[in-house]
Amino acid sequence: MTFPPAKILDVDLSKKSINVKTIPANIYRRYPGGSALGVYLILQEMQPGIDPLSPENMLIFSVSPLTGLPISGQSRMVVTTKSPLTGAIGDSQAGGYFPAFLKANNWDAIVIKGKSSEPVYLMIDGEKAELKPAGHLWGKVTGDADSMIKQENNDDSLEIAQIGPAGENLVRFACIINMNNRANGRNGTGAVMGSKNLKAIVVKKARRSDVFDKKGLSSLAASSRERLKINETVHGLGLYGTASEVNGFQEAGFLATNNWNHSLMKNGAKSLDGTTMSETILVKRDNCYACSVRCKRVVEIPGKVDPLYGGPEYETCASLGAYCGINNLETVSIANQLCNMYGLDTISCGGTIAFAMECFEKGLLTTEQTGGVNLRFGDHEALIQTIELIAKREGIGALLAGGSKVAAETIGGEAVKYSISVKGQELPAHMPQMKPALGLIYAVNPFGADHQSSEHDPLLVMPEESEERIRLAQLGVHKGYDNPYVIDDEKVRFAYLTQCFVSLIDSLCLCQFVWGSTWQLYGPSDLVELCREGIGWETSLYELMLAGERRLNMMRFFNAREGFTVKDDYLPDRIFEPLPDGPNKGQIIDRQRFNEALKTYYEYAGWDINTGKPMKSTLAKLSLSWLLDL
Amino acid sequence: MTFPPAKILDVDLSKKSINVKTIPANIYRRYPGGSALGVYLILQEMQPGIDPLSPENMLIFSVSPLTGLPISGQSRMVVTTKSPLTGAIGDSQAGGYFPAFLKANNWDAIVIKGKSSEPVYLMIDGEKAELKPAGHLWGKVTGDADSMIKQENNDDSLEIAQIGPAGENLVRFACIINMNNRANGRNGTGAVMGSKNLKAIVVKKARRSDVFDKKGLSSLAASSRERLKINETVHGLGLYGTASEVNGFQEAGFLATNNWNHSLMKNGAKSLDGTTMSETILVKRDNCYACSVRCKRVVEIPGKVDPLYGGPEYETCASLGAYCGINNLETVSIANQLCNMYGLDTISCGGTIAFAMECFEKGLLTTEQTGGVNLRFGDHEALIQTIELIAKREGIGALLAGGSKVAAETIGGEAVKYSISVKGQELPAHMPQMKPALGLIYAVNPFGADHQSSEHDPLLVMPEESEERIRLAQLGVHKGYDNPYVIDDEKVRFAYLTQCFVSLIDSLCLCQFVWGSTWQLYGPSDLVELCREGIGWETSLYELMLAGERRLNMMRFFNAREGFTVKDDYLPDRIFEPLPDGPNKGQIIDRQRFNEALKTYYEYAGWDINTGKPMKSTLAKLSLSWLLDL
Repeated sequence: MTFPPAKILDVDLSKKSINVKTIPANIYRRYPGGSALGVYLILQEMQPGIDPLSPENMLIFSVSPLTGLPISGQSRMVVTTKSPLTGAIGDSQAGGYFPAFLKANNWDAIVIKGKSSEPVYLMIDGEKAELKPAGHLWGKVTGDADSMIKQENNDDSLEIAQIGPAGENLVRFACIINMNNRANGRNGTGAVMGSKNLKAIVVKKARRSDVFDKKGLSSLAASSRERLKINETVHGLGLYGTASEVNGFQEAGFLATNNWNHSLMKNGAKSLDGTTMSETILVKRDNCYACSVRCKRVVEIPGKVDPLYGGPEYETCASLGAYCGINNLETVSIANQLCNMYGLDTISCGGTIAFAMECFEKGLLTTEQTGGVNLRFGDHEALIQTIELIAKREGIGALLAGGSKVAAETIGGEAVKYSISVKGQELPAHMPQMKPALGLIYAVNPFGADHQSSEHDPLLVMPEESEERIRLAQLGVHKGYDNPYVIDDEKVRFAYLTQCFVSLIDSLCLCQFVWGSTWQLYGPSDLVELCREGIGWETSLYELMLAGERRLNMMRFFNAREGFTVKDDYLPDRIFEPLPDGPNKGQIIDRQRFNEALKTYYEYAGWDINTGKPMKSTLAKLSLSWLLDL
Repeated sequence: MTFPPAKILDVDLSKKSINVKTIPANIYRRYPGGSALGVYLILQEMQPGIDPLSPENMLIFSVSPLTGLPISGQSRMVVTTKSPLTGAIGDSQAGGYFPAFLKANNWDAIVIKGKSSEPVYLMIDGEKAELKPAGHLWGKVTGDADSMIKQENNDDSLEIAQIGPAGENLVRFACIINMNNRANGRNGTGAVMGSKNLKAIVVKKARRSDVFDKKGLSSLAASSRERLKINETVHGLGLYGTASEVNGFQEAGFLATNNWNHSLMKNGAKSLDGTTMSETILVKRDNCYACSVRCKRVVEIPGKVDPLYGGPEYETCASLGAYCGINNLETVSIANQLCNMYGLDTISCGGTIAFAMECFEKGLLTTEQTGGVNLRFGDHEALIQTIELIAKREGIGALLAGGSKVAAETIGGEAVKYSISVKGQELPAHMPQMKPALGLIYAVNPFGADHQSSEHDPLLVMPEESEERIRLAQLGVHKGYDNPYVIDDEKVRFAYLTQCFVSLIDSLCLCQFVWGSTWQLYGPSDLVELCREGIGWETSLYELMLAGERRLNMMRFFNAREGFTVKDDYLPDRIFEPLPDGPNKGQIIDRQRFNEALKTYYEYAGWDINTGKPMKSTLAKLSLSWLLDL
């Protein structure tokens, strides 16, 4: 067995046609899953300049040859499309059981094209795939639609990836939800699904039985238990969830608060922390298929928060909490539930509402405009009301449904400064003043500000012989960063090479808490082992890194074709202001240094310094010269 | 244990000083031995524009952290210097026991600077190193000097790397000989050693005992037996030596004959083949330290050829045989012995004499000029006489001691066309008409035409799931080459990426018959395993490939500094003529296609298309920006 071909379900909703397409192994291994495969298919088929919400847009769900193997951190899928939020390539990832089931049903990707004349959902059962009417599901929140689909198919074990009303209403940061609580969150992929009248994709339960080296893989998988014992970071993520970061960030003073005007919450953030959640409302630790980390939260507040909708992640606590000046776990949990019911990205939603709150407080939005909503930082009710309005595109929600950047342009004046976004996508809650390399990635990432597209700046000097240093050296990163907060050439190198590695991880649809190049359970060498033992793919980290770099360059090429240039690689002005509070008060990113780092980054990446477009030589090296013939 | 620092013996012959220098592990791992370390040290210390034969030139002997481990194919060393033959960076490799002993004495490199006022040799015994007088050895052939040194030190187990009279006489293709029959052959490193009045470097026998994972390495090493059984190519190299290629090349019609005017020998070449050698004059199969392949020949012709000097390799049979129109094994063996005694590179020697023969036959050299030597193709006596004259720089030898290119420029006129060389170095015996990717490497390789700087063009279509394809895919080479003789973009990709890999192999000082990315005993994955088991270096093929690419770019940077440009990346006109004879008669490299391939190659390499110099962005990516501050 060697690398397999990709089997693709090719669905044209306009024609109601469903076909099977095969990508030969020799091609697939260059774009080995996830959005690498997605953007490959898009570049092959889609014309530039189309409206993201038109039938011409493609919406691709993809997994990888590794998805569904019996080991932690492999059940993830990527949705690739032209983003209605950014106008650039869209890429969004989610975990759950759906990805493993999809692959176990023997599919590598689902390509959705066109637009259905009426609401439908796609049902996949092994080789069989059919479109079913979804008129009765339209308008339903995710939990309701989920149970209706299970009921009408008489199968509780179905996995369902769907949009909520926000997607139906084309909110530009609508997401796709599976298990009612896992989200392909960012980039507005839910709006694209809504524009196609596609309510859901449903897959039958299935399990892979084609492990190449069962004994080897089983031993690698079993080692996760020992690894978890000694890996404090991942152990902590499992025990207390991602929200276990809240209080640490608060105490270090880089928890973005009140639309990034403060770097900590005045009244503390311990109340939002994962430990507090564990002690109060947590009822269960949930996991994705075959994963032993169990980082997913399930919370319950009787009469208010249903465990069906999971529980808030760190990013959600920050965006729906700190961004909006709210440090009440109940409110954040309700807001999180609403986002999961309606299918809204919590980061963009929180970021957009925080933006509106600043506009409101500064008089750029009036009570009249908000329809009476008192859009002040810290106002619980305003938060909840506004989420509802956005999902339904009602009142002030109609303005905010385009995201903070579009809203800011509509409001005009100073408002433009209050949209804390890049390429129209709201920043995740890691303040670049403390993580300048991550800030750089926020600026250059092809699908807008993202915190899951590179390793984060090491905040401490890593000891010479630490596991982190060993892993980073395997990517060609050899320095230890004596001053973590400075963005010098070596830091840019760290940013670029870990971005390529994470780009690979996202192609292979692996979880970044389990598979990585610094603190994760498994490192790059383990990944090479996984490929061999899992599917008999005798690869190398070199071939793999090229694949990661290839994905990144295809995305940049896509963007360049859509008119994006280096002007779109920026950080909001506010990010260049010093940290306003806390022990790291005054910490700043020097703008000139940042601009130099940008140039160095383009050099590392082999992108033209003036256009930001991959150079001919870069494409050639990555076997991407075919892009020039498109 | 992680990657070790490099311990360097720093010898200034002018000052007669010997110092110990350490390169920290973090630096060394970026330039992990061989000429990667050598050119790093040269770029750090040496000024551009110096005369290669002046005291300012540096002569570096280096091994790698893997040298001397108990496994096949690891006892090799590289000599790095500014080449007196090409004026470019010089790099030359040899096997034997010397490399293993040097490393086991705990040295990673010996740096020779300056010039001794009188002949000396350097004696190394563990930590101790001293210069000893060598006046009594000067003028001695290698075999004599070797036994004198052993005798005066009362130690038969010493390993000695030395020059013969050719090096003393500054013949520009003089080599360095160890064991009397292993040669750092190419690039005239022996002349540099001669210019410094350094007759020899001597190391005491020693054995490494610091294997990191004894059990793991022992199992990897033991697997060579099984591998040898099923690997026909390497098995054949062991049984019949490299000369086993002679007859195959003859029969396919790409055995460069009569100074490349023919592609086979009129009277056959079976007489020069390794099988014939085995049946007639072979008395022993010899091996390098700890190697089970045993490809080295030991031949004896009583009264004429002493087994002390080994036996002819393929390249020697071709250059001192076919190039000169001689298909007599006895003559070639005598000529080979002479080159080893005097310390002459057999390829450049044969190439230069073949050039002179063509000049003579075409009337550009007269009997007067040759001092009566009848320099005709096929003349046995002329060959033997001319080798002697070159080594001694007497008669016609004085003209030819500069190599064919310098001689051609002196003779002038048509003669310039008869020097089959690149950057002044004579071509090895693989006709690019059948191996166009290798031809490309002949043209661009920083140290002149070389057949050991990339994998050779696959002459057959490689089956999809073959070991070769799997290994090549690990380097990012995914195509099978339906037409082996065409140089398209994918072939250039093959050339560049295997060049980077071989550049790595040469940095790690591994043998290319044992370690490689196509047909060799061990492949890229095994190499990663060797690093871990051998020295506890948890590396990846990505880090390793970057190291290989880094060496190549440092060399190109060195050359650019010396004034080399794309104009120096050429092939002789004769190579663009169709193959003149045999079953592949008419096979040709299209010149325009070749020029396009050159451009594509520069693009892959990230070198400026006009200057051939590594671009700023390429240097940055390889952590080589420091070169711009030199």
